[in-house]
Amino acid sequence: MDNSAQETIAITFTPIGFVENKAEDVPRHWTVSSLEGVLAVLPQYQGGLTDLAPGQRIVVLFHFHRSGPFTGKDLRQAKRETGIIKGVFSICSPRRPNAIGMSVLEVLAIDGGRIRVKGLDMFEGTPVLDIKPHIV
Amino acid sequence: MDNSAQETIAITFTPIGFVENKAEDVPRHWTVSSLEGVLAVLPQYQGGLTDLAPGQRIVVLFHFHRSGPFTGKDLRQAKRETGIIKGVFSICSPRRPNAIGMSVLEVLAIDGGRIRVKGLDMFEGTPVLDIKPHIV
Repeated sequence: MDNSAQETIAITFTPIGFVENKAEDVPRHWTVSSLEGVLAVLPQYQGGLTDLAPGQRIVVLFHFHRSGPFTGKDLRQAKRETGIIKGVFSICSPRRPNAIGMSVLEVLAIDGGRIRVKGLDMFEGTPVLDIKPHIV
Repeated sequence: MDNSAQETIAITFTPIGFVENKAEDVPRHWTVSSLEGVLAVLPQYQGGLTDLAPGQRIVVLFHFHRSGPFTGKDLRQAKRETGIIKGVFSICSPRRPNAIGMSVLEVLAIDGGRIRVKGLDMFEGTPVLDIKPHIV
C-alpha cells in the first residue's frame, strides 16, 4: 500500500445541520451532561428524520469547529478531568487528527427539522455531520 | 441562522490509516461480524496509539469510500435485513448525506501502527478517520 500517496486523500463533508444551544459554557462530555438544546437540521435532509422518536438515544457526529490545527505534540494529551497523559485515540479530546466529535444524546421532541435533545456537550453553531441509531 | 450560507461549508478530513482485510465480502454490520483484519495507521499518527490494549473495544470512524453520491431519494431507504423503509438517520446504510461509518471493534493485538481487530464490516482499503474509546 502506497501510504505516501494515500495520506493526501481529501474527504470533504458538509453539515446536515447545526447545534442550537444558548449556554455560555458546555459540559466536557455527554456522559456528564444534562444540557438541553436543538439540532436544527437543514431542509433538504429533514425527510430522513422519520422514525426518530422522543425517548430514543441517537449518535451524533459533529465537527469540532473551534479546534485549532492538530500538531505532532497533540498525539499524547493530558485528560482534562484527571491530568493523566494518554494517546489521542484513547481520549475524547477535540484536538484530534480529524476533528470529528461523537456524542450520544437523548431525543426529547421533534418538530419538523428541529430535534430537541438532552446531553449536549457541543457549542452553539457546531456543524452536525450525521445522526445514527445508538446500538450497543 | 443563515442556513443557505452555512450549508455550503466544506469540512475536509484526511485518513489516519486504512483497513486491511482480504475478505471478498464483509458482513453487513459489526454487530454480526467476527471478521478479523488490520487497521494500518499511518506513521505520523502512530504516536497516538499508546494506551490502546488487546481486549479493548474501540469506536472506529471511517469513510464509506465505495458509496455513490447521496440524492434526495436516499432520505428513506429499505433496511437491508428487513426490507422495512426507514429514514436514513435511523439506519446504518452507507448511502448517507455524509458517508461516515462507525463500527465498534475489538482490539486483538497491536504491533507498531498495525492494530489487529475483530468485528470488521469495512472493505479492504477503507479510509479510517478516527479511533475513539468505546464509552457506553
